[in-house]
Amino acid sequence: MRLVSFSSSDGPRAAAVVAGGYVDLHSADSSLPSSMKLLLAEGPDGLARAAAAASTGSPIDPSEVRLLAPVPDPQKVVCIGLNYADHAAESGLDPPAEPVCFNKFPTAVAAHGDNIVLPPESDEVDYEAELVVVIGRTARGVSAADAWDCIAGYTCGHDVSARDWQLRKPGGQWLLGKTFDTFAPFGPVLTTADEVPAPGELDIALRLNGETLQQSNTRQLIFPIDHLVSYVSAVCTLLPGDVIFTGTPPGVGAARKPPIFMKSGDVAEVEIESLGVLRNPVVGRE
Amino acid sequence: MRLVSFSSSDGPRAAAVVAGGYVDLHSADSSLPSSMKLLLAEGPDGLARAAAAASTGSPIDPSEVRLLAPVPDPQKVVCIGLNYADHAAESGLDPPAEPVCFNKFPTAVAAHGDNIVLPPESDEVDYEAELVVVIGRTARGVSAADAWDCIAGYTCGHDVSARDWQLRKPGGQWLLGKTFDTFAPFGPVLTTADEVPAPGELDIALRLNGETLQQSNTRQLIFPIDHLVSYVSAVCTLLPGDVIFTGTPPGVGAARKPPIFMKSGDVAEVEIESLGVLRNPVVGRE
Repeated sequence: MRLVSFSSSDGPRAAAVVAGGYVDLHSADSSLPSSMKLLLAEGPDGLARAAAAASTGSPIDPSEVRLLAPVPDPQKVVCIGLNYADHAAESGLDPPAEPVCFNKFPTAVAAHGDNIVLPPESDEVDYEAELVVVIGRTARGVSAADAWDCIAGYTCGHDVSARDWQLRKPGGQWLLGKTFDTFAPFGPVLTTADEVPAPGELDIALRLNGETLQQSNTRQLIFPIDHLVSYVSAVCTLLPGDVIFTGTPPGVGAARKPPIFMKSGDVAEVEIESLGVLRNPVVGRE
Repeated sequence: MRLVSFSSSDGPRAAAVVAGGYVDLHSADSSLPSSMKLLLAEGPDGLARAAAAASTGSPIDPSEVRLLAPVPDPQKVVCIGLNYADHAAESGLDPPAEPVCFNKFPTAVAAHGDNIVLPPESDEVDYEAELVVVIGRTARGVSAADAWDCIAGYTCGHDVSARDWQLRKPGGQWLLGKTFDTFAPFGPVLTTADEVPAPGELDIALRLNGETLQQSNTRQLIFPIDHLVSYVSAVCTLLPGDVIFTGTPPGVGAARKPPIFMKSGDVAEVEIESLGVLRNPVVGRE
């Protein structure tokens, strides 16, 4: 199943993508919650009922609604750094012995089609294509083997990064450089895990104005998906709707000679095999 | 006004502290929201109506309810590192030229009286007393002068820190060491800003099993409260109920010779002048 969230006068609504458009799941089956986070919290049974509702509900024309990020309000946006060996090398760093974890605030979340807004406070806003894992059940201290059952699905993510703030502020913490508003686009569609049999074998690419600047495959992940979920869940409770950005492959702008940073008027696209294309215009803040 | 949140069968409830106990504000005036985050979002008008409701409502005996953190579900728990000059020195670091920002996830939030749970994954869980600022309105790009209007009030916070995870993991990111579940106790009471005329002149102390291990005054903050709110709001939109832990004074356990780390059976107390005492037992994870 392919799920989206869209904006309605009643707030964000979870919907299924069908041939004719989007089926608003709560409208099709009032026993289903209206928000994606609550739908995911219902677990496999909720997804089964959602699939039934999707097959009977009346589709809405996608052009009539505004798409949101598949989970518009995740409690956590966990991110993994330096998780492709080649990207660690281009960053001048050794591949880490354990996952490097940082995060973005939920105020950074943006949808497919939303603007990435360049803040006047930064001169070095870089792109990073990433596979995003969406958590489907409460997970605390899960083993790598059990981690798969905690994953609702996958989507495309763009870990927008103000390198000057990320790397050259006192204290060395990446948070601020990663969490300017609009710096966490993900979507457009959450593809449920049952339709992604091999998430660790997906082609991933980033294009800026149509030019491919990153191209790799999730086979190159240093720490695979199940390990990441298990590792993070050893520290903090993961909740339905939490997302994990799993790291970016080589080719980021800061590592190029000369460097490439995003500028107003650019269009960034993240494409992941079988998951879709996440497209965001880049604009300056007014 | 002094505000708390407590647990009820209908979910968390915002309440005012009065002579006879707690007045459930939504019960006293159904036009008031039931949760602290929504109450704060109503701004000064909401707080004025809350004060009126507090003066007429029937108090609940505090022994009959379970206290939660004043904001049980902040979207953001922003933290400031190295914000007391002496603490930077004892950490072997220069005072930073700009605020060092990191964060904890909301799953780390704990209430007054809740256990701080020592994870088996860490051998170095340290204490840090901190003044916590609670945001009262949406704030984006506010000046230091306007920052005061964005603050709902203040409370006591304990920035519990697994030093081994904070300081000795690849990548140097503090997030995981700071965000184990239960590592962000704050409370017991949110004192509204009108009752704290000089938040930058408050005695602050931490006691472990009754022994004072940190003792300072918020006069020692390198970056004062208005600067912190302004600085963070330049990067990300602050929302009602977001909290900012403003940094800790000298005397942390890791800097002592020999070091002091918390152990099961300890009781940690953070006391801030005019704001109260936040007390948490320390236990091992079962």
